[in-house]
Amino acid sequence: MELKLYVDRMSQPSRAILIFCKANGIEFEEVKIELAKGQHRTPEFAAEVNPMKQVPAIAHGDFKLFESHAILIYLASAFSGVADHWYPADVQKRAKIHSVLDWHHSNLRRGSVGYIFNSIIGLAFGLPSNPEAAAKGEKLLSASLQTIESFWLNGDGPFLLGNSKPSVADLALVCEIMQIEVADENDRERILGPHKKVLKWIADTKDAIAPHFDEIHSIMLPFKEKLKELKAQASN
Amino acid sequence: MELKLYVDRMSQPSRAILIFCKANGIEFEEVKIELAKGQHRTPEFAAEVNPMKQVPAIAHGDFKLFESHAILIYLASAFSGVADHWYPADVQKRAKIHSVLDWHHSNLRRGSVGYIFNSIIGLAFGLPSNPEAAAKGEKLLSASLQTIESFWLNGDGPFLLGNSKPSVADLALVCEIMQIEVADENDRERILGPHKKVLKWIADTKDAIAPHFDEIHSIMLPFKEKLKELKAQASN
Repeated sequence: MELKLYVDRMSQPSRAILIFCKANGIEFEEVKIELAKGQHRTPEFAAEVNPMKQVPAIAHGDFKLFESHAILIYLASAFSGVADHWYPADVQKRAKIHSVLDWHHSNLRRGSVGYIFNSIIGLAFGLPSNPEAAAKGEKLLSASLQTIESFWLNGDGPFLLGNSKPSVADLALVCEIMQIEVADENDRERILGPHKKVLKWIADTKDAIAPHFDEIHSIMLPFKEKLKELKAQASN
Repeated sequence: MELKLYVDRMSQPSRAILIFCKANGIEFEEVKIELAKGQHRTPEFAAEVNPMKQVPAIAHGDFKLFESHAILIYLASAFSGVADHWYPADVQKRAKIHSVLDWHHSNLRRGSVGYIFNSIIGLAFGLPSNPEAAAKGEKLLSASLQTIESFWLNGDGPFLLGNSKPSVADLALVCEIMQIEVADENDRERILGPHKKVLKWIADTKDAIAPHFDEIHSIMLPFKEKLKELKAQASN
């Protein structure tokens, strides 16, 4: 059955799904949906791919699915050959991963999107920056990073929940944090700098999923340069 | 193994978990954590039950878990005798339920909490109402109800995804919407009234989980009366 991934590599949940497939040898067709061009908002996309007009979304034969966590779990469950550590069969280990992913929705993800979109990525969509909303996002983002530092990484292993190998939760959360890479150096240092365990965990996750992690994130550098230009234009 | 549920029946995700256990004959001890008294914010609660200082949380023997969706899925998976319709074994049916629950986080739940907390429930915590935040919450809540009406209930059966019997997603979402019952009649009619399919689905869910659904929600009426008093005091 053919697997199509409807993604934009600028989107952090899209990258998580691309990396997951590459790391697990799952064959797919990448259908590029350019958010900055509004390709996710067309009536065709809503009718045929995702009525919520968002990426990522997938089609696996006739089966369609959206919401990135649901997609990661589906891919880990539906394809043979995905190692157990990504989404363990054990009911209690699995429940802990669901708990991290649910927490992510209302905390790290919400803070990160609030900060990044309102401070810089909105510029790529022709929107002005919104310092008040960005500050609110940064507050939740920083509190979430502190919770990862002091609680979710408070185990024996290098990954979330003290695991020795990454799960879909590590991939989803690290890809989210990688979006901060598009911020400028000062912002990045202010937000991520205080969280040493988080920085080590990001490095460990990159290493564990090499070379796919860096390959899919290679789009970030040119994007960062482009945003720098837009930011300079906006402040002139 | 003993199952303890740390809950406050005023909290919609707490009610979903209580109802799920009762409907499936899962024995438990209900440990009442009164949010209005701040019992979820004590150092003991954070250390022994849930570091995020929220309800619901569970302890199943030595295993501890928080986040209500993760708890519902865990209970459906760990206890024998839970009918398949609650959380189907089929990978694709299960994926669709994850998709609804993920969507819920950023839409219905976020809108509902934003509206209810800022318009009325904050009063029970001694906080003033915040009309601007309440209006923002109501906008997202109404859009989410419209999405349930036109998309999630757009199937052959009476439940979400066109299912013929309720899943954990129906339970989680309907319990969320029941919180609107504490609003006054005009607010309730304005918000829920336009969504006829949603109203039928709420009634069908109540019927399918009788008598447990109404039993656990019986706390709502006295709570509504208490909030009416607080609202009258606040506006004087």
